[in-house]
Amino acid sequence: MTRFEVTILGANSAIPTANRFPTSQLLNVNESYYLIDCGEGTQIQLRRNKLKFQRIETIFISHLHGDHYFGLIGLLTTMHLLKREKPLKIIAPERLQEIISIQLRAGGTQLGYSIDYVPLVFENGYEILKDEKISVKVLKLSHRIDCAGFVFEELEKPRNLQKDNIDKYNLTFEEIKNLKNSIPIIRDKKELLEQLLEEKEITRTYAYVTDTKALESIIPFIESVDLLYHESTFLKNETKRAKATFHSTTHQAANIALKAKVKRLMLGHYSTRYLDLELLLAEAREVFENCILAIEGKTVKV
Amino acid sequence: MTRFEVTILGANSAIPTANRFPTSQLLNVNESYYLIDCGEGTQIQLRRNKLKFQRIETIFISHLHGDHYFGLIGLLTTMHLLKREKPLKIIAPERLQEIISIQLRAGGTQLGYSIDYVPLVFENGYEILKDEKISVKVLKLSHRIDCAGFVFEELEKPRNLQKDNIDKYNLTFEEIKNLKNSIPIIRDKKELLEQLLEEKEITRTYAYVTDTKALESIIPFIESVDLLYHESTFLKNETKRAKATFHSTTHQAANIALKAKVKRLMLGHYSTRYLDLELLLAEAREVFENCILAIEGKTVKV
Repeated sequence: MTRFEVTILGANSAIPTANRFPTSQLLNVNESYYLIDCGEGTQIQLRRNKLKFQRIETIFISHLHGDHYFGLIGLLTTMHLLKREKPLKIIAPERLQEIISIQLRAGGTQLGYSIDYVPLVFENGYEILKDEKISVKVLKLSHRIDCAGFVFEELEKPRNLQKDNIDKYNLTFEEIKNLKNSIPIIRDKKELLEQLLEEKEITRTYAYVTDTKALESIIPFIESVDLLYHESTFLKNETKRAKATFHSTTHQAANIALKAKVKRLMLGHYSTRYLDLELLLAEAREVFENCILAIEGKTVKV
Repeated sequence: MTRFEVTILGANSAIPTANRFPTSQLLNVNESYYLIDCGEGTQIQLRRNKLKFQRIETIFISHLHGDHYFGLIGLLTTMHLLKREKPLKIIAPERLQEIISIQLRAGGTQLGYSIDYVPLVFENGYEILKDEKISVKVLKLSHRIDCAGFVFEELEKPRNLQKDNIDKYNLTFEEIKNLKNSIPIIRDKKELLEQLLEEKEITRTYAYVTDTKALESIIPFIESVDLLYHESTFLKNETKRAKATFHSTTHQAANIALKAKVKRLMLGHYSTRYLDLELLLAEAREVFENCILAIEGKTVKV
């Protein structure tokens, strides 16, 4: 199987501590890098985890609260200082572009690479990106300001021919090419395709949901995903505060996972008040057993 | 002696590394805190050094290159989330205000405290701040964009009466009050003042000079300071590069210290290329012996 894994660079909520960084994750899809959110210190965390940040092709910013993007301008500047030339795509709320531009202008900086800004569309299921490896669809979340979640889905890879079949069916060069492009060959007046190819690889899906109150409306769009990252800022005894601040509790996150029948749940965006994260994990597992904590520096295979 | 000391929060140049932060320093003058520059990660460094950042009264930003201010918006936001109400003064290039405002607006954040923005005046000797404890004067530096240095000078404290003199001169309550306000008393038709008071405390001075090419024009304004922080981004074999990028070498920094007859020199703003900072120190000492390195987490008494 090719690589499809996410490295946690920060999983704390708004107030960073001496050793817990705000939100950022690096998704590695077969050696293409996608950065999801970029809190202050993300470039330091990328270095600490020995992740080559010039390899990042696309950056997703879920919303414009600082703990999700204050590290972006520093990362963009460092990419420039390190002589990046490769274009970068940034998928973010529209206003981000002006925030970045005003700071580059103030510093007299003309980036040595181009940025392709893609404004977010806050609509469940909207396909905001499709490249050679993945399709990314938006989730419309409910926070104090516009906020998006993302569902990352691997694209099916072109299937190879089972090599034995070249001799068995006496395939021509043309036929081989056709088969790879899903055009069947004809033998004994029958079309043959599926049985000549290698088995389909499974395509994996990763859903990223933060910051938001728990939302049933996203369930159809995250159903059966392999891994769901869902914020659980608070323990369940803070349900009132979660509601007031448009965040989720452990039980709420776990209930979404349960109803959406996801394979695995990862908690994150912890309030600074919790020193022992195991409490959050234990509570979520009361509702949904296959649950893990997002921990800085850890890499999770999807 | 009261406290007058500077804690180094970051001393690296533009590109941060896994364990070297960009520029920031905290000046403690008798328990009043002044923050000088605020690179990305400054709030994390303040926490790591157990410095209560709500005690900061004034923030100085030397110029608008990111390694000197990208950490400011995060710090301001965290101060707000931690319920700061005390006003904050920010002394910075004028355009900073719009950069901060646009980000607060985008996040829907209304700070719970007020910010008093004081636009920098780039003029040698211009007094940009005078409060109860210090006077701060500007140095006009020469960088790729407008950049200021700062000279922090302790104010003379009101001098106390030597207690023996109350009986000796049979002082009235009124006379005691006058003496403290430098109004002499009359005895035998003579004015008496100095000899009745305690000795003057020495006032200390700290000069902060980064980012700039080495500038003789600032020498009259930093003459004899107790501690000079002068950037030395490069070793002397990179003199050409220093000139091209408007930075200083070790020898240039040390020569300024020598000509200005400062008591002590502290180097900083090291290029990321130098893993062994002792090389920079050794070179500077060839010219000016009383020289130290700015090291993250270290506190230097002025």
